[in-house]
Amino acid sequence: MHAILDEALICHVAYVAAEGHPVVLPTIHGRIDDRLFLHGSVASAMLRALRPGVECCVAATVIDGLVLARSAFHHSMNYRSVVVFGTATEVDDDDEKIAAMRAMTERLMPGRWADARPPAPRELAQTTVLTMPITEASAKIRTGPPIDDAEDLELPVWAGVLPLRVERGVPEPDPDLPAGRTVPPYLMS
Amino acid sequence: MHAILDEALICHVAYVAAEGHPVVLPTIHGRIDDRLFLHGSVASAMLRALRPGVECCVAATVIDGLVLARSAFHHSMNYRSVVVFGTATEVDDDDEKIAAMRAMTERLMPGRWADARPPAPRELAQTTVLTMPITEASAKIRTGPPIDDAEDLELPVWAGVLPLRVERGVPEPDPDLPAGRTVPPYLMS
Repeated sequence: MHAILDEALICHVAYVAAEGHPVVLPTIHGRIDDRLFLHGSVASAMLRALRPGVECCVAATVIDGLVLARSAFHHSMNYRSVVVFGTATEVDDDDEKIAAMRAMTERLMPGRWADARPPAPRELAQTTVLTMPITEASAKIRTGPPIDDAEDLELPVWAGVLPLRVERGVPEPDPDLPAGRTVPPYLMS
Repeated sequence: MHAILDEALICHVAYVAAEGHPVVLPTIHGRIDDRLFLHGSVASAMLRALRPGVECCVAATVIDGLVLARSAFHHSMNYRSVVVFGTATEVDDDDEKIAAMRAMTERLMPGRWADARPPAPRELAQTTVLTMPITEASAKIRTGPPIDDAEDLELPVWAGVLPLRVERGVPEPDPDLPAGRTVPPYLMS
C-alpha cells in the first residue's frame, strides 16, 4: 500500500459536504510511515470541511496498462489502487507541518526540498496540514494478460496488454530564470 | 470539460455509503454528448449503492506537470480536472448499454470496438451501466510556470515545469495469442 501511495502522483479525497452530498477532489498527498498527509490553503473548502474531524476517504490509483481481450466484455485495465478510510486531524505543530510538506515534495521530486527556500512562518500560517492514519485501508491490483472465455481464444483478434506509464518530459525553465542556470539532476529522467 | 473527461484514463466516483461514511473508488468512464457513463458487474458494491439514485460525485483529473518554484511554498502541479455532481440512473435498454460500453472502449482505444467480439446477451445481463448528466460540473485548470514571490526571483534555485504525460509502451501479446498475429494500428504510439 505504501508503494502505491508513494507512486500515485495525486490522490482523490471524498467527504460528505455539510449539505449531505458527496464531494471528491484531487489533491497532492504525502506519506510518513503509516500516516497520510494532505495540505492546502487555510481557505480551502475541502480542508475546512475535513478539519473538524469528519470522516473521509482517500483513493490513490496508478494505471499500468490497457487490457485488450478478444471480447469487448473482458476488456479491463491493469492498475494498482489504495483506498484509505478514516478521519483527518489537523497538524498544529510547525515542525510536523514542515515534515509533512517535505514528505509531499520529496515523494514527487526526491532532492528538491534541500534546494527550495523553506516555508516562512507566514507561509506555514497560511497552510493547513491534515493527517490520517493508513490503518483502515484496502488495496486492489490487476496485473497480467486478458482473461478471455475459452471459446473466444481462436477469434482472429489481437489480444494483450498495452502498457502505460507516466513519462517525464524536458524540463521547461521559468521565463524569469537567469540564463545558464542548470537543471538539477533530480529532474533528469 | 468534455476534453478533460475524454483524456483522463479513469475517474474517481464518490458516494455516501449506507452507513453514512464517504467512499471513493476508481473506475473507467465513458461519455456520449452531455452524459457520463459508468459500468461494472451487477455485483459491484459501488454500482449497487449508486443504482437507487443516490447522489454521487465524479472527478476526472489529468496531470500535466510538476511546478517547481524557488520556494517550497509555491510548488504546485499543472493539471486539468473536472468534478461532476449528480445522481446516476441505471441504463436498462440493451442498445443504450452497448452504446455506453462502446463509448468507454473507443475513448481509450479508438478503433478497438470494431475488432472485439461484441457483448453477448448474457454478458449484457451481467453488466450494470449507469449514466449521469454532465450538467452540474466544474473544471479547474492550472497551467504555466511557477509564480514565486518577487523577493525570491534571484534565489540560486532552478525553477520551472517538469512536464508529465502518459506514454504507451510496446504492446505485450497475450501468451495464448497465435504467432504472427499483428498488432492493430490503434495500439501503435
